[in-house]
Amino acid sequence: MERFARKVLEGFSRQAFMSTLGAAIECAAPGTVEIHMPFNQRHTQQDGFVHAGVITSILDSACGYAAYSVVPEGCNVLTVEFKVNLLAPAVGEKFAARAHVKRRGKTLTVCAADAFAINGDQEKLIATMLGTIMTLPKPDGDRRDRA
Amino acid sequence: MERFARKVLEGFSRQAFMSTLGAAIECAAPGTVEIHMPFNQRHTQQDGFVHAGVITSILDSACGYAAYSVVPEGCNVLTVEFKVNLLAPAVGEKFAARAHVKRRGKTLTVCAADAFAINGDQEKLIATMLGTIMTLPKPDGDRRDRA
Amino acid sequence: MERFARKVLEGFSRQAFMSTLGAAIECAAPGTVEIHMPFNQRHTQQDGFVHAGVITSILDSACGYAAYSVVPEGCNVLTVEFKVNLLAPAVGEKFAARAHVKRRGKTLTVCAADAFAINGDQEKLIATMLGTIMTLPKPDGDRRDRA
Amino acid sequence: MERFARKVLEGFSRQAFMSTLGAAIECAAPGTVEIHMPFNQRHTQQDGFVHAGVITSILDSACGYAAYSVVPEGCNVLTVEFKVNLLAPAVGEKFAARAHVKRRGKTLTVCAADAFAINGDQEKLIATMLGTIMTLPKPDGDRRDRA
Repeated sequence: MERFARKVLEGFSRQAFMSTLGAAIECAAPGTVEIHMPFNQRHTQQDGFVHAGVITSILDSACGYAAYSVVPEGCNVLTVEFKVNLLAPAVGEKFAARAHVKRRGKTLTVCAADAFAINGDQEKLIATMLGTIMTLPKPDGDRRDRA
Repeated sequence: MERFARKVLEGFSRQAFMSTLGAAIECAAPGTVEIHMPFNQRHTQQDGFVHAGVITSILDSACGYAAYSVVPEGCNVLTVEFKVNLLAPAVGEKFAARAHVKRRGKTLTVCAADAFAINGDQEKLIATMLGTIMTLPKPDGDRRDRA
Repeated sequence: MERFARKVLEGFSRQAFMSTLGAAIECAAPGTVEIHMPFNQRHTQQDGFVHAGVITSILDSACGYAAYSVVPEGCNVLTVEFKVNLLAPAVGEKFAARAHVKRRGKTLTVCAADAFAINGDQEKLIATMLGTIMTLPKPDGDRRDRA
Repeated sequence: MERFARKVLEGFSRQAFMSTLGAAIECAAPGTVEIHMPFNQRHTQQDGFVHAGVITSILDSACGYAAYSVVPEGCNVLTVEFKVNLLAPAVGEKFAARAHVKRRGKTLTVCAADAFAINGDQEKLIATMLGTIMTLPKPDGDRRDRA
């Protein structure tokens, strides 16, 4: 397995919330990460659609790991901000979030990601994210405070 | 109990994901909603902070119900988009999301919300959202598609 | 000339600010619009780069006309909101904004656009926009108020 | 005059585009800046409203100088990204953008700003911005590339 893929999987395995959502890395290449997540009734809003915050969670993790896949060894990443447009109801058997690095900088990396609802062999675009991720020199405690 | 508060609580009780997060409406007034949520290790990211997507979820629900509290009877609401800035690590015993309506329109309502980490009697601003919510004439199936 | 291109050019010609910026439609196809603008020292910020607001202006107009190119005859469009990431200094002989429709809805259209600085035959990505545009039934006075 | 006010005015005077717009600093205090701008037909869009990009320009400059007013001496600032919601048509005799620092960090400062249309002694909220500004160690050439 490629080094960046191992690094991404290792980081992802430490995100308890991704495991709570049943989300998993589907594939990872330098600057690109795809996360899959099954439908779960426990994650829905009042209409039975998956909650916007859940879709945002996999979009954010996909962007974060896409950025993480391109930062130097030993560095960590932290989401600064993101914007999400919800394009269609999150209805489906499972969901995919596909992120790619749009601009890589020394301190800030900008990523874009799309989320899809998957039903059988059909997929439909349901949301899109544009976000900013910060590179941090090394992993330690209260990092965002220092940013 | 005020009519808008009952309406908001009723709507909220149908959001399975809010219940999964242990989140509850702390108070609701016309155009203002506050949601509280306890810390839960199952909702953390790799550093033990609560995942940005979880904080976004309570911010989004707070904005959605703040908008819902001001739309005409029989109308429903749907999040169009939001932007979140993460300001400090989500570390705390519990978390609060406070939303208010910034501009109320016939079709679109704009809400702002802040999220706080609460430790004892201290609270710290950890995130802020600016979002757009759409009013829908009445509750039925595949609404976002028709937007 | 195609009907949608004529419609876009006609609409654009009524934007006084685009003319003030020296901006022009470079090409227009259904769902896609490209705007070009020369460098002008009068549009710079303190470092001699073109001001973020100027780059945002051509990105917003490109998104607006991309949306306009796909709405039904007789309808008008109005920007609801946008987010812009500034990726590199706006330094160049001229600038291009390329927008495309990402999701077309009855009421709301979501567009993405990239801005480039052009020097000779080189171009560099300098900014990116994700925005929401509203379709309005017909052109008349105080429309955003009614939204 | 207070040192921060002088610093803000000095910086502002080097923004050619603000002068092109006829915009001026109305007041500046640590963490807060207000910019005023007269109506100008040359800055309008197809309906005679001031173009969203122009309103964004004064919002962005207000946020930038609000951030600039709180960074250490010798540091410079650069806008990373912003999101703008357009709330009502930009129709008025003049316009005001009021920005304040929402969170001040070592590297990143988050600002919020509102824009108002002013007619006589009435003012109306027309737009709101949430943005991220980066602090740069010292003023020199191609800074955003190094970010």
